[in-house]
Parts: sequence; C-alpha cells; structure tokens
Amino acid sequence: MDNCIFCKIAQGDIPSITLYEDDDVKVIFDAGPATKGHALVIPKMHYANVFEIPEELLAKAHIVAKKIAKALKDATGCEGVNILQNNGEMAGQSVFHLHIHVIPRYKGDTANIQWTPGQQDKEYLEELAAKVLEAMK
Amino acid sequence: MDNCIFCKIAQGDIPSITLYEDDDVKVIFDAGPATKGHALVIPKMHYANVFEIPEELLAKAHIVAKKIAKALKDATGCEGVNILQNNGEMAGQSVFHLHIHVIPRYKGDTANIQWTPGQQDKEYLEELAAKVLEAMK
Repeated sequence: MDNCIFCKIAQGDIPSITLYEDDDVKVIFDAGPATKGHALVIPKMHYANVFEIPEELLAKAHIVAKKIAKALKDATGCEGVNILQNNGEMAGQSVFHLHIHVIPRYKGDTANIQWTPGQQDKEYLEELAAKVLEAMK
Repeated sequence: MDNCIFCKIAQGDIPSITLYEDDDVKVIFDAGPATKGHALVIPKMHYANVFEIPEELLAKAHIVAKKIAKALKDATGCEGVNILQNNGEMAGQSVFHLHIHVIPRYKGDTANIQWTPGQQDKEYLEELAAKVLEAMK
C-alpha cells in the first residue's frame, strides 16, 4: 500500500535490523520502544487491523511472536513479556498496518500496561453476552 | 491443574457467562474488567504462558480472539480493541494459566495501555539482534 511505512519496511524499501523474516512476516525493533528489545511482528501483506487480516496469517504471525518472545527472553534476560496487538486509534494503534508488539519487561521499566480492575455488572453482561452470541452467528 | 481458577472455569466447575466454547477454548468476561465487555480467551488445557503452550493451540486461541473482538465491537459499538497476552508477573500476569485479553476501548475509559516512546540505541540493538538470531536457531 502506498505511503504505508510498514509496507515499505516489509518490502525492504526502508532498511531495518531484521530479527526474523519469511515470505509472510518480518520482525523488526520498534522505532519508539517501550522497553529494551521491544519488537514488532509485521505481516508483509497490508491489513489495517485484526478485523481485516485473514485467520491463517494472523495465526502465523502469533506463532512467530511466540518464537520471538522466547528468543528475546533468552537474549535479554527479561522477567516478563507482553504480547499486544492494538486495533484503532482509541486502542493506541498509530500505524494502520496490523502489527504485534512483543515487549520484554524488566523491573522498573516505564511501559504502562495495566488497569484498575472494575466490578462486573451481571445484568449488563448477560445482555451483552446475548448480543455477542448473536454477532458471532 | 489443581487450584487453578481458569482450569476450574474451563471445566465448568466454576460457573461463568460463556461467550464462546469449543473443545479447546472457552471465552468468558474478565472478573475485574478494564472496560465494559473485557473478555478472556482461555485455552482449556493448562499452560502457564506463551513459552509453554503448543503453537497450534496458541494459533487457535488467537483466531477465536479475532472473532470475539469483532463480535464485541459489533455488540458494544466500541471504537477500538486491544488484544493482550501477558507473560510473567512483571508483565502483569496474575493468573498463571495462559489467557488472551480482548479489551474494547471507549473514549474516556480508564484502561492504561501505553508508553512514552523511547529512543533506539542502534549499537545495543545490533548486539541484541545477534543474540536473538542465535536464540532462534
């Protein structure tokens, strides 16, 4: 896709340090890392988000993310790893070409991936579940 | 696994509002939601994290997460969705049975999934990439 930075990186038109590459997927370091070693799994074909990408390619990208998570853990000695895929600006997505963040976590790092647990509203959830089941049909 | 709350939910020993279920995976609402409709995709077999789970089951769980993300978007009208899988206490994992968070995002919600982009240290990354490539072998 024209003017998509991840398409250009995936095609090699913009150079990158490459951690993994095959016909379908490329793995690079995030240009604005949350933590040391923060990597991105980028499917080469352009799909904006999880709603658009075919199941098979999404599955493959997550298998690559698993391998990268393990390799980054071995290589960095990090104590945890977040695997995060954001869809939509409201969810923090800034490049609209699907990518999976693999974020090594270290004591005292500044990544902020958390929330204060809310309360379940049973009545709301029963109604929502019915809508979800309908939408899944 | 004894004393694992997600094993008990997956087996139906603890009741839950169920959004999806098949032989391998169950989807429920998070008991301490980040936002309205926050769901969890839980593989029924017990694996602590992304390092332990077999590739095929991980892939299947992510395909289910994609379907749930779409259905939740349709059902809630949310503006974005985070798909997040935490590994290790340092990464925010609190139940040590792998699960995938599917978090609808709304304007003004209180989920906190972000970071201040850091700078790339090219020399460090070149060295780390060599270690990662070694670890991937």
